[in-house]
Amino acid sequence: MVCDRLFPRGAAALAALALTLVQSVAHAQADATSSPAASNVPGAINPRIYPDRRVTFEITAPNARSVLVAGGDGLGHGPFPMIKSADGVWRVTLPPVVPGFHYYWFILDGVAVSDPASKTYFGYGKEISGLEAPDPDGDFYSVKAVPHGEVREKWYWSRVTGAWRRAFVYTPPGYDSSRTRRYPLLILQHGYGEDETGWTRQGKAQFILDNLIAAGKAKPMIVVMDRGYGSKTGMLALHFDNDTPVKEIGRAFDAFDHVVLRDLIPTIDASYRTIPDRDHRAMAGLSMGGMETLFIALHHQDEFAYIASLSGPIVQNPNSSQSLAAALRAPFDVKSAYGGSFADASRFNRRVKLLWMGAGTAEPADFRLGIVGAVKALRAHRVHLVYFESRGTAHEWQTWRRDLKDLAPRLFR
Amino acid sequence: MVCDRLFPRGAAALAALALTLVQSVAHAQADATSSPAASNVPGAINPRIYPDRRVTFEITAPNARSVLVAGGDGLGHGPFPMIKSADGVWRVTLPPVVPGFHYYWFILDGVAVSDPASKTYFGYGKEISGLEAPDPDGDFYSVKAVPHGEVREKWYWSRVTGAWRRAFVYTPPGYDSSRTRRYPLLILQHGYGEDETGWTRQGKAQFILDNLIAAGKAKPMIVVMDRGYGSKTGMLALHFDNDTPVKEIGRAFDAFDHVVLRDLIPTIDASYRTIPDRDHRAMAGLSMGGMETLFIALHHQDEFAYIASLSGPIVQNPNSSQSLAAALRAPFDVKSAYGGSFADASRFNRRVKLLWMGAGTAEPADFRLGIVGAVKALRAHRVHLVYFESRGTAHEWQTWRRDLKDLAPRLFR
Repeated sequence: MVCDRLFPRGAAALAALALTLVQSVAHAQADATSSPAASNVPGAINPRIYPDRRVTFEITAPNARSVLVAGGDGLGHGPFPMIKSADGVWRVTLPPVVPGFHYYWFILDGVAVSDPASKTYFGYGKEISGLEAPDPDGDFYSVKAVPHGEVREKWYWSRVTGAWRRAFVYTPPGYDSSRTRRYPLLILQHGYGEDETGWTRQGKAQFILDNLIAAGKAKPMIVVMDRGYGSKTGMLALHFDNDTPVKEIGRAFDAFDHVVLRDLIPTIDASYRTIPDRDHRAMAGLSMGGMETLFIALHHQDEFAYIASLSGPIVQNPNSSQSLAAALRAPFDVKSAYGGSFADASRFNRRVKLLWMGAGTAEPADFRLGIVGAVKALRAHRVHLVYFESRGTAHEWQTWRRDLKDLAPRLFR
Repeated sequence: MVCDRLFPRGAAALAALALTLVQSVAHAQADATSSPAASNVPGAINPRIYPDRRVTFEITAPNARSVLVAGGDGLGHGPFPMIKSADGVWRVTLPPVVPGFHYYWFILDGVAVSDPASKTYFGYGKEISGLEAPDPDGDFYSVKAVPHGEVREKWYWSRVTGAWRRAFVYTPPGYDSSRTRRYPLLILQHGYGEDETGWTRQGKAQFILDNLIAAGKAKPMIVVMDRGYGSKTGMLALHFDNDTPVKEIGRAFDAFDHVVLRDLIPTIDASYRTIPDRDHRAMAGLSMGGMETLFIALHHQDEFAYIASLSGPIVQNPNSSQSLAAALRAPFDVKSAYGGSFADASRFNRRVKLLWMGAGTAEPADFRLGIVGAVKALRAHRVHLVYFESRGTAHEWQTWRRDLKDLAPRLFR
């Protein structure tokens, strides 16, 4: 308030006024063709999305001195300054965003806060806003008039961590009425900073599977989505960055390995009508969940016949003293990678029914080049694998939704 | 930043500094005995709760000029100004709060924002922060080593609204393994501004039922928690306040009545092993959900034998032209209330197996006096009912958790 009174007609105020006028006109013109994002809370008219996927964000903050909007890669290269109108409402219209789901937040006088008009999603270790931008090819994850499975909240005691854990379990359409039919099991993991809610809230995995199963493209399966941290607190035991020695990350993942093998699989097999053998068990994960999948499933091939890494950074040796950054750039060594899992290609091909790897074409170079390098080296070594690219999407959920659409039909064949 | 430079040693800055020092000391002293709230995101050390239920809130906002914390009744009579430390962190320690769950938010330079350190909950029509303050008698809603039911996300098509709807369905322990056993059904509704997630996220209904069933105190039952708005958008068709004519509210509730009778019950009876008759069907709701329950269940006694209003404001005639405020204060007329449901007390007593009403002793007078007035008038008229009071709690979730603990054992006897 004091600042507002000090500079009522200053240069900054005049510039802001001019921009406000431009902004108001753009807003008024655009309203007729734009519509509220599906990720808004009911009744909230902003954020609004235009047919060309420009997005208008808005927040009322008459006393703020600076408001920006920032978010995931697909939102563009922000943060984007917002402009204050005479009515105290800050607005900005972003250039067309990438289709799909993007985390975002406002920076209000320097503080990152959620948009009160948005649903929140667990990412970056907290609850933050998300923007659902329509994809012209996004029909595969919409709620349609097909038989629907259920997503069940399952609580179980972990002897490994000494704590109660929550997993979500997708049971396919017909699960309750068939009574005796048994199903294969997919363990499907989220990324770093996310949790067991990610695949159904951000990923819409239940609708992707409902639609694939209804079309006869995927076999009915049970999917369990657990919290990918094997500690009592339910978060990773360390915060890692480019300088973290890989072996420390490997140790943190070991705890989750133990949860999966000793607590989770026995619980799910005892609670649901799974077919409890390796030929009917898959593990897949995105980003950190892909790293975990490769560490865990390649190490326990007696437990998993289907293995998928969705944008999982390639770290070949979980016991390495290398920094994460160095490990990501290391050339892929087919003989030694992942404890020598691929050394004997024909043995691997006989044993593992599917190795699936994917990346978005707009992902960070370190991630994508590592994945592409591994794919090339493995193929040259005659390891059978499927490599899938999501066009134009980054290290974000739209990549992983498309991944699941490609992956699920290949499972349990 | 400009303001900070303009007043480096001003009176306000000196006062703030003094308060900051006091605050820092209090904070340092308290840390040893306080612990992070269970409602924090994993790893967040604030809000912190002390053994006497004082609560310290904290947010880093070096550039903010004013930060307050505000919230639900049980938090105290805020908003409470927070004090800025030299490190840019704003803090306040509140006097002991009421046990249980309280919505809260920060007011950051005039803008209501969620606390990045808190889980969010759907209330007030948006996602906001919540504080879980321990209750020495709160064991009944904790996750314990007892058999656990499941909470299932159920999508269904509503012909009434022409839209897909999501309900959550609690199935009791043993539901999957028994295969043929059938269960009674409780429809359990949230309050105004909340949604179908409220009873499991804020209310912990699944743990309350798990614990009661394990102790043999409640019969195993199926519980469905739906979104209490019968419109395509999934929110109430109107925003109501004290001046809204009751008949407009009644009309908005009519749409939900149709959803419950025509869409929800048939869907649940077709999808789960319910006992699909009135003697095995209950409806209960809190606040607005209590109003809905009384309107719907008293009007359809052929469908419901158990009827419970948890802090539901008493509005006797949904077709009245009275304002809401006037209707809440009207003396209870046993002959005409709720379409004459109670006029013949002995007929009502034969037909309705349980009428249950509850309120917290710290609720707003309009709500509580209306409920108490109805209870007195109904008892004088020899209508059988149970009245339950939650000591020291307001129009908040701790009242409703205690209500469910009292109510569930009385159902389906």
